[in-house]
Amino acid sequence: MSISPSRDTVLCISLAGRPGTFGVRFHNHLYQQLGLDYYYKAMTTQDLPAAVSGIRALGIRGCGVSMPYKEACMALVDEIDPSAAAIESVNTLVNTHGHLKAYNTDYLAVRQLLAQRQVDPATAFALRGSGGMAKAVASALRDAGFTEGTIVARNEQAGRQLADTCGYRWLPDLGDLAPPMLINVTPIGMAGGPEADQLPFADTAIEAAEWIFDVVAMPARTPFIQRAEALGKPVITGLEVIALQALEQFVLYTGVRPNREQVDAAVAYARQI
Amino acid sequence: MSISPSRDTVLCISLAGRPGTFGVRFHNHLYQQLGLDYYYKAMTTQDLPAAVSGIRALGIRGCGVSMPYKEACMALVDEIDPSAAAIESVNTLVNTHGHLKAYNTDYLAVRQLLAQRQVDPATAFALRGSGGMAKAVASALRDAGFTEGTIVARNEQAGRQLADTCGYRWLPDLGDLAPPMLINVTPIGMAGGPEADQLPFADTAIEAAEWIFDVVAMPARTPFIQRAEALGKPVITGLEVIALQALEQFVLYTGVRPNREQVDAAVAYARQI
Repeated sequence: MSISPSRDTVLCISLAGRPGTFGVRFHNHLYQQLGLDYYYKAMTTQDLPAAVSGIRALGIRGCGVSMPYKEACMALVDEIDPSAAAIESVNTLVNTHGHLKAYNTDYLAVRQLLAQRQVDPATAFALRGSGGMAKAVASALRDAGFTEGTIVARNEQAGRQLADTCGYRWLPDLGDLAPPMLINVTPIGMAGGPEADQLPFADTAIEAAEWIFDVVAMPARTPFIQRAEALGKPVITGLEVIALQALEQFVLYTGVRPNREQVDAAVAYARQI
Repeated sequence: MSISPSRDTVLCISLAGRPGTFGVRFHNHLYQQLGLDYYYKAMTTQDLPAAVSGIRALGIRGCGVSMPYKEACMALVDEIDPSAAAIESVNTLVNTHGHLKAYNTDYLAVRQLLAQRQVDPATAFALRGSGGMAKAVASALRDAGFTEGTIVARNEQAGRQLADTCGYRWLPDLGDLAPPMLINVTPIGMAGGPEADQLPFADTAIEAAEWIFDVVAMPARTPFIQRAEALGKPVITGLEVIALQALEQFVLYTGVRPNREQVDAAVAYARQI
């Protein structure tokens, strides 16, 4: 992939404690495919307030925000979109002539995926996890009208807090329960992690489920997703979430919505590492 | 020209009231030719202190500084190189792990050109102009040991101040004087300007001169340079100054010194607009 810089190239960046490659490759690939004079650069910072002031002062158009800046940057922006307000967590900044608006496209992506698949909000679910992404997913479920939910988390304080915030119940362990939708928002199944070959829920629960949703994106087909597919269950994958949230960032930055084929090609390119 | 962005691409920028194209094209062309994972982006700002803080906080490696920021940014850096201290004017910032050092590569370029051409410091000169670039050139002459100089400027206050600072004399007009080196640091002869077809010095003075030095870079061969070349005089051109100052910026940012051929190709590319 290659792009041609000009005087008027629009700069977008990301801020992350440990910058990754997905955003750089996804966004720059689409800029090139669509002939947009944009450039995307992954960055990190030791001084978030100065970095955000710099985004404003240097006319940087957009910024993807990752750990550990997702909460801290809320106080530094001019406007907070409901997507970020809903979970008090930001993953996207859009700079329009010095006015910074914060969004959370993880939340937006989960909302869209639930709607696209027409998952019935009456479906009871168990969500395993209690971190920042668990908050985005649980809030999206709540706002989509899902009322029967169980937050499964070993960390009682974080689990209870998330459950209370969204009006769900907390359990340290799912036990023999087998709700129709199982959602993993932990690192279980993540390539290279200590639990890469494990399942976030018991086999019996997976066998009984109607929907399987895994937020882990690397690999695209985690053991959890593989098991679900082997059983013929419909799945929502972490790859879909990461691709859709990146697409929504792209649309916010450029005002251009690429078609499905272009997005798929950018995702495929972004994952060739 | 095209380049390939990666997660680790090093970003350099420029700040100018009216961003130009030379730097973007010169630097990015050399990055590509030398296989350096760098990217150069022209920018402007309404908030210089926040922009400079942002350079530090975002880990932007280098920044070219143009009007109207050349003096104001001196108070915002951690260290000032003698090249910038000599003229109280900055055109380059280098960020090394958050430590910002300010340079003036215009000054360095003029020093180098005078030395390369072995212009005898005993040569008396007349320098027309009294702006920021005139200060860089006059200071370079002073520091190279030139003692007999006349600053020619209609603006008495600015002209006298520059002359006093450097130990030269000021005249509103050269009159019948014909010193052996004539230096133009005004917009006279600049393409598109109101005096594009004019000469900064009288014909008789040009005919009598031994050295002709024009800081105007667009066109490369101004009427002043053309007249000097027709008379067989040695010249120093504005194109040489702009190319050399950009090269010195490039070396400060990357630690790599391209060869003469590579620089010439980058200059030629940068001027194809």
